[in-house]
Amino acid sequence: MNSQDLFGNIQKKQSFLCVGLDTDLNKIPEFLLSKEDPIFEFNRRIVEATAQYAVAFKPNLAFYEYQGAQGWISLQKTVKFIRQNYPDIFLIADAKRGDIGNTSKMYAKAFFQHFGFDAITLSPYMGQDTVAPFLEYEGKWVVMLGLTSNESAAELQLLPLHDGQRLFERVIGTSMHWGHENNMMYVVGATKAQMLEDVRRLVPHHFLLIPGVGEQGGSLEDVVKYGMNSQCGLLVNSSRGIIYADHSQRFAEIAAVKAMELQQQMAAHLKAQGCI
Amino acid sequence: MNSQDLFGNIQKKQSFLCVGLDTDLNKIPEFLLSKEDPIFEFNRRIVEATAQYAVAFKPNLAFYEYQGAQGWISLQKTVKFIRQNYPDIFLIADAKRGDIGNTSKMYAKAFFQHFGFDAITLSPYMGQDTVAPFLEYEGKWVVMLGLTSNESAAELQLLPLHDGQRLFERVIGTSMHWGHENNMMYVVGATKAQMLEDVRRLVPHHFLLIPGVGEQGGSLEDVVKYGMNSQCGLLVNSSRGIIYADHSQRFAEIAAVKAMELQQQMAAHLKAQGCI
Repeated sequence: MNSQDLFGNIQKKQSFLCVGLDTDLNKIPEFLLSKEDPIFEFNRRIVEATAQYAVAFKPNLAFYEYQGAQGWISLQKTVKFIRQNYPDIFLIADAKRGDIGNTSKMYAKAFFQHFGFDAITLSPYMGQDTVAPFLEYEGKWVVMLGLTSNESAAELQLLPLHDGQRLFERVIGTSMHWGHENNMMYVVGATKAQMLEDVRRLVPHHFLLIPGVGEQGGSLEDVVKYGMNSQCGLLVNSSRGIIYADHSQRFAEIAAVKAMELQQQMAAHLKAQGCI
Repeated sequence: MNSQDLFGNIQKKQSFLCVGLDTDLNKIPEFLLSKEDPIFEFNRRIVEATAQYAVAFKPNLAFYEYQGAQGWISLQKTVKFIRQNYPDIFLIADAKRGDIGNTSKMYAKAFFQHFGFDAITLSPYMGQDTVAPFLEYEGKWVVMLGLTSNESAAELQLLPLHDGQRLFERVIGTSMHWGHENNMMYVVGATKAQMLEDVRRLVPHHFLLIPGVGEQGGSLEDVVKYGMNSQCGLLVNSSRGIIYADHSQRFAEIAAVKAMELQQQMAAHLKAQGCI
C-alpha cells in the first residue's frame, strides 16, 4: 500500500483512525475467558465492530508476547482474519524493534513475510543499517519513533545538539533520507501536539502515526491543527478508549460507538481542511 | 543474580564468555532439520557442548520470532533446558525492546516471569519510564544499548550535544541513575573498543556486554585493555564464530573447541589483570 492508497481509504471512510489492539487477558470481558482463544475472540469482535470506522489496526506486540507461544498464535489468527475480511486495512506491528543488519533482516521477514503486516514501528538509536532491511520490501512501511507520547520522552528526544537542533528533529531529518514518503512515517505523540509544527517543517508530506489521544491526554483538535496536511497525513491511534470502553457482553457494540464518535470528529476535520 | 554472583561465576569458570544463540534454520546442520524441533535440538547440543566455557547465553529474539509460534516454543524449551541443567548461567534476552510504561510492564512480565530470563536488552530512546518497569524485578537486569557495534551506530550515538558530550555518553550518564551496578549493564560494541575508555570513565564499576568480537571484527585484546575492571566487568559475546564454526555432525564438538579457545584467552587476561 502506498500513501495514495492510504489517503484513498481515508477519503472513502472519512476517517484516519487506527485502532490499537493492546489486548490484555486481564482487561477483556470475563465471559470471553471460557473461549478457546479469548484474545483472538476479543480481537475478532472488536475488528468486526470497528473496521468500518477505521483505516488501520495496530496490535501491540508486548501484549501477545506476554502470552508466549499462544499469544503468537492469537496474533497470527488476528492478522489473517483482518487480511481476509478487510483487505483495505493498513496493518501496523507495534514492535519498536531495531537491531544490526542481519538481525533486522530476520525481523523484517518475521513481520512482513511471516505475518503479512504492512508496517512496523522501529527505534532509530542504532542508525540506518538497522532500518534498511525493512525498506527493501516493496509496499511495506517503516514507522520510526520520532517524538513519543510518554513523559520521559523529553530526557533524550528533546536534548539540544551542538547545532541547536533537538535530537528528535535530527532523527527525523536524517532518517527521512533513508526512505521516502511511500515507505516511511513517524510516530509523534499527541501529547506533544504543538511540536507537530516543528515536525511538519521537516516532513511536510510524510504520514505521521499519532498515539496518545484519549487516555493519555492528547487532543484531536490540536493534532489536526498542527499536523494535518492536504493529503491528511495522519493516522491517529486510540486503544484503551475504544477496546476497553465497556466490559459487558456489549463491549464490541460500545467499542463501535466510541470508534464512530472519533470517526465523525475526524470526518468534520477532513471536510474543514478540504481533504474530502 | 547480582554482580558479585556473576563475578564469582567468571572466576570459577575463568571465562567471561557469552554465547549468542542466533539460531537460524538456514544455517544449522542439515541433519538436524528432520528432528521434531530442530532449533531446540541445535541449541541443546550447543549449550551442552559450550556451557562449561561460558557464563552467559544470549538468544537473539529475532531468530525465534521469525519462526512464529514454533520459534517461541523452541525458545521456551531452550530457556527451560538451560535453567534446569545450568542454574549458574546468566540468561540474556536480546530483544532490544523499549515502549511506554504499561507496555514495558507487559514486556517485563513476558521476559522475566513467563520465560525466566535474567536480563533483557533495551533501547534508551524513549527514556526512564520505559525502563523502570524492568528494574522493579529483584535480581533481574536491564542491558541498555550504549554504543553499538554496527557501522551506522555513529549516525546518532556519536552526535555531539550542545555541551560537548556525545549522545551515547549522555545515554549512559543519564540512565546509570535509573538503576545501579546490580541491575544495569551497557552494550558497547567491540568494534568501538577505544571508546570503552570513555565509557569506563562514566561507569567504572558497571558490567558491559560486548558484542562484535570475531565475525564483526572486534579484538578481545582491545576490549580487555580498555574495558576490564578489577571485577572483570565484561561479558564478551560470540555468536556466529562459535555456533556456526562447523556444519557437520561434529558441529557441537567444534563449537566447544571454539568456545574453549576463547575461554583460554579470557583466562589469561583475567590472570594478567589480577581478577583470578
